[in-house]
Amino acid sequence: MGSLALVDAPMQPLDPEALAGDSNAVLDFLAEYYRDVDKYPVRAANLEPGRLRELLPKAAPEVGEPMEEVLEDVRRDILPGLTHWQSPRFFAYFPMNASAAGLAGEMLSVGLNVVPFVWAASPAAAELETVVVDWMAQLLGLPRRFMFSGGGGGVLQGSTCEAVVCTLAAARDRQLARLGHEAITRLVVYSSDQTHAMFQKGARLVGIPPSNFRAIPTSAASGYGLTSDAVRAAVDRDVALGLVPLYLCATVGTTGLGAVDAVREIGDVARRHGMWMHLDAAYAGSALVCPELRDYLDGAELADSVSTNPHKWFLTNMDCCCLWVANPRALTSALSTDPEYLKDDVGIDECTGKPAAIDYKDWQISMTRRFRAIKLWVVLRRYGAAGMRAHIRRHVAAAQWFEQAVAADGRFEVVVPRRFSLVCFRLAKRCVGDDDAAANGANRDLLAAVNASGQAFMTHFVVDDRFLLRLAVGGASTELLHVKEVWELLQGKADEVLQRYQRKAHRM
Amino acid sequence: MGSLALVDAPMQPLDPEALAGDSNAVLDFLAEYYRDVDKYPVRAANLEPGRLRELLPKAAPEVGEPMEEVLEDVRRDILPGLTHWQSPRFFAYFPMNASAAGLAGEMLSVGLNVVPFVWAASPAAAELETVVVDWMAQLLGLPRRFMFSGGGGGVLQGSTCEAVVCTLAAARDRQLARLGHEAITRLVVYSSDQTHAMFQKGARLVGIPPSNFRAIPTSAASGYGLTSDAVRAAVDRDVALGLVPLYLCATVGTTGLGAVDAVREIGDVARRHGMWMHLDAAYAGSALVCPELRDYLDGAELADSVSTNPHKWFLTNMDCCCLWVANPRALTSALSTDPEYLKDDVGIDECTGKPAAIDYKDWQISMTRRFRAIKLWVVLRRYGAAGMRAHIRRHVAAAQWFEQAVAADGRFEVVVPRRFSLVCFRLAKRCVGDDDAAANGANRDLLAAVNASGQAFMTHFVVDDRFLLRLAVGGASTELLHVKEVWELLQGKADEVLQRYQRKAHRM
Repeated sequence: MGSLALVDAPMQPLDPEALAGDSNAVLDFLAEYYRDVDKYPVRAANLEPGRLRELLPKAAPEVGEPMEEVLEDVRRDILPGLTHWQSPRFFAYFPMNASAAGLAGEMLSVGLNVVPFVWAASPAAAELETVVVDWMAQLLGLPRRFMFSGGGGGVLQGSTCEAVVCTLAAARDRQLARLGHEAITRLVVYSSDQTHAMFQKGARLVGIPPSNFRAIPTSAASGYGLTSDAVRAAVDRDVALGLVPLYLCATVGTTGLGAVDAVREIGDVARRHGMWMHLDAAYAGSALVCPELRDYLDGAELADSVSTNPHKWFLTNMDCCCLWVANPRALTSALSTDPEYLKDDVGIDECTGKPAAIDYKDWQISMTRRFRAIKLWVVLRRYGAAGMRAHIRRHVAAAQWFEQAVAADGRFEVVVPRRFSLVCFRLAKRCVGDDDAAANGANRDLLAAVNASGQAFMTHFVVDDRFLLRLAVGGASTELLHVKEVWELLQGKADEVLQRYQRKAHRM
Repeated sequence: MGSLALVDAPMQPLDPEALAGDSNAVLDFLAEYYRDVDKYPVRAANLEPGRLRELLPKAAPEVGEPMEEVLEDVRRDILPGLTHWQSPRFFAYFPMNASAAGLAGEMLSVGLNVVPFVWAASPAAAELETVVVDWMAQLLGLPRRFMFSGGGGGVLQGSTCEAVVCTLAAARDRQLARLGHEAITRLVVYSSDQTHAMFQKGARLVGIPPSNFRAIPTSAASGYGLTSDAVRAAVDRDVALGLVPLYLCATVGTTGLGAVDAVREIGDVARRHGMWMHLDAAYAGSALVCPELRDYLDGAELADSVSTNPHKWFLTNMDCCCLWVANPRALTSALSTDPEYLKDDVGIDECTGKPAAIDYKDWQISMTRRFRAIKLWVVLRRYGAAGMRAHIRRHVAAAQWFEQAVAADGRFEVVVPRRFSLVCFRLAKRCVGDDDAAANGANRDLLAAVNASGQAFMTHFVVDDRFLLRLAVGGASTELLHVKEVWELLQGKADEVLQRYQRKAHRM
């Protein structure tokens, strides 16, 4: 489609030829990208701010340009500046899975481009969402109370942060309805010092005073998981001060260490104080598709809400976060703009026993929403429960292999026992003159050397003042082979780093 | 790729053959869909809750299924339950544009699947976003202060609701830093009675007491736009009560009527009271690409923030909302989880004059984010400024034609003067016995008859107790031809409805 045609003839943005031309060009591009992604430096080599801005024109073009030129610019100007999350050698943060089915599902979502914000605006899209969140709850072994078929229900949002903001607002408004709005300054929220920073951000966003945010200390003794004793102590202190315990965020698989809070124990404390307990399983939730990993869920029935991100480790391209609540009414009371209208629109119709129409705009922050359900549904259909279990197990097995390799190498130590597919490890202090600062320095250097090689990308964490490296196994294309290679790389770099530190110690 | 392969062989979710197979099947499906979408009833015919749930299995499949079967189920079970937002005969709500370039851009975004939440996590993705929001600001004629090149800056979010929540939090925290957190119960927010419900929802979400939400009345005299007199009166009342004016939401192109607030006048009031003024141009912002429609922007430099949704009328598939702020620091102060760290990371580096690295996680609610920039960038590259102007102008011209047709037909009346491409009209009261209730009833019946025909989908609004019909022209494939056809349809249905009402009046 020539550029001039765009100006002279009526535009046909959905013209079949334009559609085929543009989309096929992108598919070819992506096929090439996935084929070659292993060869790029994993972390962007071009880190200088302003570089891309200099390469691109100062303004949008006046006249449209051919897709081939656009893709050529992506290849030349943009790819070198990307960090390649789909590289099999990406072990940083947590994974963000892409897959053929996830892409196909997203293409359906964005191609149909319907907006299931109220029922009539696309009934089947809203209803598919109710079906797919029930399927997911069942697959992950969640208590029935979080399913529509069990009186609860779920929604697909964009991120855990959104899910936490929505449930915080629900918990807040339930308390303020009782206490009056001025009590907002007395509401207190709890998490561990390992909880993702999004929780503090979310609490602040809904108006909880920053001074009423408790990051309860954890320690190696509990594997950096929250214990009931610690929660009870914190809550009792606040109650004695006349404050109101509002919300407890429990995590299964923390970002830094993969730690797991003692869900049942702390859930009991939350219940006793009338707190809302949210279970954040952003990363590890996907692993619960494997029955052998479900012990961590023990006590989940004490939670008021649960969330997990299939866009992390469940082959569902960005973005997709499942949020389930035991009591949808609490959520919609806080988020509905027209509460009366909804009165009979949530959950199961009591007369017919059938699910009633759902206006999902009242289950989330935004009114507008995408048809995410079809993406997750395509992923589940294409790979099936067996496929997803195989996907998780190969990564858990690879992480297990890596953990054993680390443990067997005298220069290294595993910092916390591995759960799921995250291994936290470091060069042992004893190898760097038994000096804390030197150990941290050596580990920083080791990470920098690995990342600078371009052959892998990992990120770090600090716990008890110890700098450690995180190997998060979970990329869609990551196999044991890649984990073995990164281990070789680490061993080589460790030699270099340790020699440097030993020379340094020698000179002193 | 056979299903068994998924279980027996290692999974290869990004295998080139699987990718090509699944994606091409979806592309064929979408091409067929766009070809036939004109033939489906525009509003879903199947509105019965629970219907799809009955058709689908109770659980995810154990073993993966072929893409062809999945798509067959979409065709058979899901399509009949969708309301077709991409039908050229979709005139409801506001449009949600799909396009070949938007789909291609989204495929790139979701295929690359990078996460530009902090700079290092994908520098070029973050930087492309800074470029593309500057391009957009320039294209729409926004004041320079909202561009990175002018000391402000922009971000791509998912929806206006998110943009409003973020700016409300910024305004709130700026005031609370001065007044202390307990002052949160004295903060007041202002909008008109025509402002989108998302504003009330957003204000409540950030902890503003619902009793401190002012929906200032508008009237026909100002075309249902906010006037400075009305704002001043409301603000003065609150100040006299010891309350603190916080935030004013001005709209260019309201959802119900397409009304435009007197931006310059009310901006002066906002300034005088130290309020944050946000300019919500969710729908009409796209139209500002046409210089002849830019008068409505007069006074925009008095705003603290502006937002518009390219996913509505700018050929950018869901989701994409541009938010610009004059002072990025105000935003990041409220939304950063690590404010110190950011101190030199916003806007232009004062020494080099170059844009510094941006951690976009601190510009939005969520930490996680998609690479939306590449989608909007592909749209701008493919269609160019000229293409976008042509796209907007054909719809404005078609709406103009419709408005004139309505005005020329004695049975109908235009309720408010058309701005942009939304026409608000109704059967005139004089044709239904000069009776208010009958007029509303007749218009309700007319809308129901049009929507039941399946040949068009429109939605309604109520202003000054008058029920009216909204024709929102803006679908990606909508041409004058379709507007002419819906006018014919309306005329035919009007005959039927009016005859019924006249017979009824006769019998009484």
